[in-house]
Amino acid sequence: MRHPPPLTVRRLLITQSRLRQISSFRPIAHVSWSRPSHAFSQSRPHPADTTNPPSSSKPGHTSGSPPDHRLLAAAQDLLITHPVSPGSPLFLPHGSRIFNKLTSFIRSQYALYGYEEVITPTIYKKSLWETSGHWENYKGHMFKVTGRETEETEKQIAIGEQEKIEAEEEFGLKPMNCPGHCLLFKHAAGKLSLRDLPVRYADFSPLHRNENSGSLSGLTRVRRFHQDDAHIFCRPSQISQEISSTLQFIDSVYKVFHLPSYKLMLSTRPKQGYIGSLEEWNRAEAALKASLEESGQEWAINEGDGAFYGPKIDIILTDSDGKEHQTATIQLDFQLPQRFGLTYFAPAPVAEQQGILSTDPEELKESGFVTPVIIHRAILGSLERFLALLIEHYNGKWPFWLSPRQAIVIPVAMTDEIVRYARNVRKVVSGLPGETGRINANSPLAMSRRTFNVDIDESGGLFSRKVRAAKTKHYNYIIVVGEKNLNAKTVSLGPAFSQGQEHGDAGGVGRSLDMSMEEVYQRFVELENEYA
Amino acid sequence: MRHPPPLTVRRLLITQSRLRQISSFRPIAHVSWSRPSHAFSQSRPHPADTTNPPSSSKPGHTSGSPPDHRLLAAAQDLLITHPVSPGSPLFLPHGSRIFNKLTSFIRSQYALYGYEEVITPTIYKKSLWETSGHWENYKGHMFKVTGRETEETEKQIAIGEQEKIEAEEEFGLKPMNCPGHCLLFKHAAGKLSLRDLPVRYADFSPLHRNENSGSLSGLTRVRRFHQDDAHIFCRPSQISQEISSTLQFIDSVYKVFHLPSYKLMLSTRPKQGYIGSLEEWNRAEAALKASLEESGQEWAINEGDGAFYGPKIDIILTDSDGKEHQTATIQLDFQLPQRFGLTYFAPAPVAEQQGILSTDPEELKESGFVTPVIIHRAILGSLERFLALLIEHYNGKWPFWLSPRQAIVIPVAMTDEIVRYARNVRKVVSGLPGETGRINANSPLAMSRRTFNVDIDESGGLFSRKVRAAKTKHYNYIIVVGEKNLNAKTVSLGPAFSQGQEHGDAGGVGRSLDMSMEEVYQRFVELENEYA
Repeated sequence: MRHPPPLTVRRLLITQSRLRQISSFRPIAHVSWSRPSHAFSQSRPHPADTTNPPSSSKPGHTSGSPPDHRLLAAAQDLLITHPVSPGSPLFLPHGSRIFNKLTSFIRSQYALYGYEEVITPTIYKKSLWETSGHWENYKGHMFKVTGRETEETEKQIAIGEQEKIEAEEEFGLKPMNCPGHCLLFKHAAGKLSLRDLPVRYADFSPLHRNENSGSLSGLTRVRRFHQDDAHIFCRPSQISQEISSTLQFIDSVYKVFHLPSYKLMLSTRPKQGYIGSLEEWNRAEAALKASLEESGQEWAINEGDGAFYGPKIDIILTDSDGKEHQTATIQLDFQLPQRFGLTYFAPAPVAEQQGILSTDPEELKESGFVTPVIIHRAILGSLERFLALLIEHYNGKWPFWLSPRQAIVIPVAMTDEIVRYARNVRKVVSGLPGETGRINANSPLAMSRRTFNVDIDESGGLFSRKVRAAKTKHYNYIIVVGEKNLNAKTVSLGPAFSQGQEHGDAGGVGRSLDMSMEEVYQRFVELENEYA
Repeated sequence: MRHPPPLTVRRLLITQSRLRQISSFRPIAHVSWSRPSHAFSQSRPHPADTTNPPSSSKPGHTSGSPPDHRLLAAAQDLLITHPVSPGSPLFLPHGSRIFNKLTSFIRSQYALYGYEEVITPTIYKKSLWETSGHWENYKGHMFKVTGRETEETEKQIAIGEQEKIEAEEEFGLKPMNCPGHCLLFKHAAGKLSLRDLPVRYADFSPLHRNENSGSLSGLTRVRRFHQDDAHIFCRPSQISQEISSTLQFIDSVYKVFHLPSYKLMLSTRPKQGYIGSLEEWNRAEAALKASLEESGQEWAINEGDGAFYGPKIDIILTDSDGKEHQTATIQLDFQLPQRFGLTYFAPAPVAEQQGILSTDPEELKESGFVTPVIIHRAILGSLERFLALLIEHYNGKWPFWLSPRQAIVIPVAMTDEIVRYARNVRKVVSGLPGETGRINANSPLAMSRRTFNVDIDESGGLFSRKVRAAKTKHYNYIIVVGEKNLNAKTVSLGPAFSQGQEHGDAGGVGRSLDMSMEEVYQRFVELENEYA
């Protein structure tokens, strides 16, 4: 809950033409994700705080022009920023498609790992932030929220009364989800049996942190962001199993993106000022080490770099450009459960008999109310920052499942008959009811019906130019529709960006295959299922 | 953008035992959704403002105890409210399941109706709200957001400077999405061809309105809520087609919930103080009437009750209890596009040749920049309020597709073998990888994999009591697993709340069928696909 260390912002020369391209961004500075290795010895912000790590001032990193997510995001119409809300990106339709696909992906894994999504408030009264410690320790990064009184209410209320109401109605805009989740756990705890732990609350709420307006940039230094955030409330004896499961979750997710390798960094008990007993720390750190060992991943220790309230594991990703990115985080917290007075009931003899608590002698001492441990964890971390990372990682060429432009239908000629057929093709391969479709447009689509982002190019101009345009826009597939297709009830499906495999027939479309519309749709479903 | 009329709150007598049940709610008042019919002659709040319609003070409505969403929500662990954030419901896992299902449902229809989802900021500077008119006309309902200065920055900045920064960094917490969508349209407009209109931006953002804390209650009078909100930017000539399509959207959605009939209410031009030309209004109203006529729904006119910036259509639902609920709304807006200086380029001769503008003589006058019309529209309206309506409509018995408790597995006996089998059954019918499942737990679940809310009762006690408990909790299906099932690799699936069809064998489970696990899963998929 400390302040992040001050920023070192490295300015890049941006040419005028590039500036014009990114006019909606505020082209003030390039902030790198990477952190100098000595940063590991600094104490860092709160759990799950993966948004704005200190930027790199690594000297000698002068490679020409690595992909810049701001330029790519502008070129692909993913998002804009605007001075009326600095640091709060506005996602255009194409950016929202990717953003929503990321949350859908993580959400779909929650059933597998036993998470329950919750929906929690955006503003909480000062008193909650005092309980959590944020009001005191995080104040510079919080926005304050107050009601705007109408003239009538102002007239009605005496001055002293007015002040009282204002004080009562002073809110903080949430920078983190943990306090809200503590309220939910506290409510639920009365109904929970010992067997119901761990409780895992997941939350995609927008979060706000008041970063200096001068340092805001693209998706990497923002004021408004979302995390694939979760808090695990568990028994001390369950820490190891929860960490292992989270590491597996992380690994399975990161494999999907074909990201470069990552390493795990364990930060241990600081020498002074920590809370909790030495024994508690030793056991927790041993559990973490066991899980790290078991994970089979590269890991290292950052001695004494844990927060005062618990040890943590950070995931450090090194990209092909050599930059380091801190994304996922797993953070133990002994403090917050105490601040909120969270407990669960452990009837020791019964529990021992059932073998539930057998690994935890502390808990077995006596039956009664026991304090749980909280694990703050984020898999992708800040979705905005992860999106920036992906934009640069894929350099604008999205895999099919994530792509905002999955396919485009290009009619070979603009005759009425072919255009009508092409429009029907677009509908059917998108997953929508076509002219002869079995789905009735008057009734709702089934929620499980997969739909895809398929456009159609009905503009005038040469066919070959349309194909070129589709490739420039990085559509994944080009669907060519001509006279032959019309007669055979087929389409010609070709990849748009398999490099160097272009051939003449279809005016530059890669090796294309004649398929039925339904076959194309099924292929798309398979690609999505395989995260291809 | 007017203030809503003052509330008339009708207090209900709530017994002490009921009060204890709903202790997490603030049981101060029962606010009905219904509005007295004379409310139609009052001017009402802003477009898409379906959150807090005036409550009813209808006399004579004294029927015993109709379903109260607050009691049901508490009994089913759907949500809590808490004094640290009055009017911002905290959704527990079961409430979030329903909430997310509602948004998934609406989202899945957006592909069909041509909507594009966008993600927009929560806070905007005062200047945006001045442009939109909210700062002046909606001030009593807006929360103000300011940064909390740290001591260091306070020291660094001279007093005059400080005030300037504060004025520059004064934000409003958004009560509506329209201004943000105007920014997006303004950005996109330069790249849009005439053919790209209408543009339809959809947004599920949380919204905040500063309602008086004393009037807050359950899900019906809240400060934080979500809408299935969208703004359609279209040419005047497209109004009729957009209204028709929206009415069809509404109809197809409302049929899914098997809600009682609704009527459509058209509010027309006020006698004075309206903006835009008489001709513009006449044409828009004619378009709306034509769409209403075409819809085949019951509709009526509320003469002169439109807002000064455009006519509107409200959807009024009458429930079985006779209460009226205003849910969906469709509102034309001639003003906001002007305030934001929104235009699109219409090259008249080309457009005429292509027959695009043929119905709109105004637009054909000359090529150049033309002002679009905005249609504010919400299908469910406030999701919170719609959820309250559904809770009472279903009286706690959710249809399968919406149910937070779709099935429960009950082992006939608690032997190790049966319990192990039952656990596997729970996984497989949930859609998760079972012991022999084809899904590898080390790789991610496919996003298209449907998963279901299936619990297991591993508690001690009598089988018949477990069945009774499952029924009390309104599980949709009870899956009984015994020795016979274990041997035959089957389960016995029975409905939990088909009344009066209980029979002896399975201890009170309705007519049950022996099926394979995969067959149960497929049945669940079908039920969800059919919104059953």
